[in-house]
Amino acid sequence: MRAAVHATKLTIATMDPMGLGSLRFCRRTQSQMLNVVVGSEPRTQEECMSERRTLVLGGDGYCGWATALHLSARGHVVGIVDNFARRDWDAQLGVRPLTRLASLPQRLACWEARTGTRIPLYIGDIGDGPFLASAVRDFRPDTVVHFAEQRSAPYSMISREHAIFTQKNNVLGTLSLLYTLHAEAPDCHLVKLGTMGEYGTPNIDIEEGWLNVQHNGRADRVLFPKRAGSFYHLSKVHDSNNIEFACRIWGLRATDLNQGVVYGVATDETQSDPTLMNRLDYDHVFGTVLNRFCVQAALGQPLTVYGKGGQTRGFLDLRDTVRCIELAANQPAARGEFRVFNQFTEQFSVDQLAALVQAAGRRRGLAVRVEHLDNPRVEAEAHYYNARHTRLLELGLQPHLLSERALDALLAFAVEHAHEADPAVLNPTVRWRT
Amino acid sequence: MRAAVHATKLTIATMDPMGLGSLRFCRRTQSQMLNVVVGSEPRTQEECMSERRTLVLGGDGYCGWATALHLSARGHVVGIVDNFARRDWDAQLGVRPLTRLASLPQRLACWEARTGTRIPLYIGDIGDGPFLASAVRDFRPDTVVHFAEQRSAPYSMISREHAIFTQKNNVLGTLSLLYTLHAEAPDCHLVKLGTMGEYGTPNIDIEEGWLNVQHNGRADRVLFPKRAGSFYHLSKVHDSNNIEFACRIWGLRATDLNQGVVYGVATDETQSDPTLMNRLDYDHVFGTVLNRFCVQAALGQPLTVYGKGGQTRGFLDLRDTVRCIELAANQPAARGEFRVFNQFTEQFSVDQLAALVQAAGRRRGLAVRVEHLDNPRVEAEAHYYNARHTRLLELGLQPHLLSERALDALLAFAVEHAHEADPAVLNPTVRWRT
Repeated sequence: MRAAVHATKLTIATMDPMGLGSLRFCRRTQSQMLNVVVGSEPRTQEECMSERRTLVLGGDGYCGWATALHLSARGHVVGIVDNFARRDWDAQLGVRPLTRLASLPQRLACWEARTGTRIPLYIGDIGDGPFLASAVRDFRPDTVVHFAEQRSAPYSMISREHAIFTQKNNVLGTLSLLYTLHAEAPDCHLVKLGTMGEYGTPNIDIEEGWLNVQHNGRADRVLFPKRAGSFYHLSKVHDSNNIEFACRIWGLRATDLNQGVVYGVATDETQSDPTLMNRLDYDHVFGTVLNRFCVQAALGQPLTVYGKGGQTRGFLDLRDTVRCIELAANQPAARGEFRVFNQFTEQFSVDQLAALVQAAGRRRGLAVRVEHLDNPRVEAEAHYYNARHTRLLELGLQPHLLSERALDALLAFAVEHAHEADPAVLNPTVRWRT
Repeated sequence: MRAAVHATKLTIATMDPMGLGSLRFCRRTQSQMLNVVVGSEPRTQEECMSERRTLVLGGDGYCGWATALHLSARGHVVGIVDNFARRDWDAQLGVRPLTRLASLPQRLACWEARTGTRIPLYIGDIGDGPFLASAVRDFRPDTVVHFAEQRSAPYSMISREHAIFTQKNNVLGTLSLLYTLHAEAPDCHLVKLGTMGEYGTPNIDIEEGWLNVQHNGRADRVLFPKRAGSFYHLSKVHDSNNIEFACRIWGLRATDLNQGVVYGVATDETQSDPTLMNRLDYDHVFGTVLNRFCVQAALGQPLTVYGKGGQTRGFLDLRDTVRCIELAANQPAARGEFRVFNQFTEQFSVDQLAALVQAAGRRRGLAVRVEHLDNPRVEAEAHYYNARHTRLLELGLQPHLLSERALDALLAFAVEHAHEADPAVLNPTVRWRT
């Protein structure tokens, strides 16, 4: 089956039926040829085999946008679903990204103008069953990449309403998606963004989703026991449990990507045109720690470490996020399989990151202070942490590690845009205990 | 502190200030004296120490009603919260209990007439924050017993809408409750009804909520890894995870009662007057297996075993349900403790239960057939099952085991009411795979 599809693709690529020169990717049917993209190099056999119709849910967000463009550039036929909730939350909180965002239609028009590739946009909420079914019927994905969740732990802990909203949006939205896939696209591969925060900080090694347990002389392979640290992280735990069940009873295929903390802003595609620029959040609600530290350093503000700073987590460059998703999508889970990858490349403590940003500041002549605040969260501040993350490496991930060069580039970006930053949104106001 | 409260109570009991003879329970303040109940025996010191103000959420349901009356009879000051959703679901499905139910106000009036005890009723949805806060402020519980959930696995698997409703109702309702307790009654003990079905059927012994794990030379105590078998059971897994987190960050105190399959209909209190009679569900959606088998036997219908019948679960008599809740309430979890008890008394396979009902039928001269249906669920039909259930025994539970006498009484009840039964609602129509 693979060989046949592959042969067809090669034929089209070789025939060059529309005189488009080398095809960046290959299409299955003539009716789809309108979307064919001109590129600089012929696709290899391996690359053509990876062609996918990939629907990115939450494609307007930080990781979703970068992923949509990356997959489009790598030959996936990409569609986006979004309801612009992320932009609403900024408005609610009175924050905005460091970068000025073009509207999603502007971004998509720019991408089409630059590459000839149209990325269809479906505007709506994945919790709206009829909307989601119509989008899936129209787009016919073989992969759905699911970023369409509220993704901030502090946001979920602002109030009762925010906690309930987060679990409703995430858990019921994903449940709606599972039913839609079962009904409309049962062979479709769900690539779901989870978080390393689902695991908490156990005193044992963290495995990739499953754990082989010996107990009272008997053995089983069980879902890795989790102990999450916010109602947001818990929503992802609930999702994982629901998805595993859907795989078990319906034979869905799913990859749960338990992602570490992402840093960085640019990918090859998002930096190819100012209109395609990604968002970079630095506020205390949506700013991930390293991005926030770089903006604090650029503003001459202290790096705010919560508590002792011994909190250790997995981290990855945004460029690895998009590559991990591509790897997972191109080598899908089997029918009925609930596959879990831990998606990060390195572990750091918060104190280590602060020291790295201080050093990067010194290289630029910036004096960077570190300030330890009372921890607004409830979390261990010194703990064992050793999480396995080999499966994406086995699939071909070549990590962008946090080199001096990478960090200097991120700090330079923050300095360049620092005039857009609002120092008032840096310090935490959301407290877990209240 | 304990001693002081105890002394006050004894004083009131001894003084008999209102000339009510022996007090069935003792009150803290004069303003509460109006609810004092006359009983037949003086309360012992130990009984007085167990006085509680207990708010039963879902007090109109099968277990909730029996629990409310049991606790009231045992000296708790009881209030009920209910939104009558359970009666709505009957109407939706076109089913009704075997027993004719009085309305909840009729039941409560009967209880007050018989015992002199008024049980206040708060009508509303626990997901409605202002309503729940006002009920908690008014009643001032020191224990909340939480039955207010959609509790049927088949109901949750009817359709997308039923699955989403179940998780919304249960998970968000419980999350709402957690916030209300944190804000209004942070010292209140939450006694939450979970289910043994949260665990699934692992190949290792099932512990009570927590598991000591050794892995790669290190050790931790982790939440027992679960693998539930329906979107309903998953809703309870999600609840457990949310509750454990609330204990961790807010210092709430909670007991999660992972209850087995309940059978029986009567407790001392519910059978003390026809108006107080409990519901007995026998339909394929809400009828638990042994109750349904007895009604099938009474109707001359075959006992419908799903699949091979080797499915093994924990079971308990309704009289033990109410006693377990009393034991948990009277010996509360500590602040910050997430305590889990497995609430069942015996394990049976479905085939074993069918054979027991056949034997009970023979004792009554009923010919009882057993029919193995294609399993509408997705579950192991032959598996290891060994679940620990010692903690409630340690607190004082004296089980009502499934004796011939108990089973004969249940079958007699079914025969007595068989003319009310609708054979059309016995066979399963809800299939997990579709």
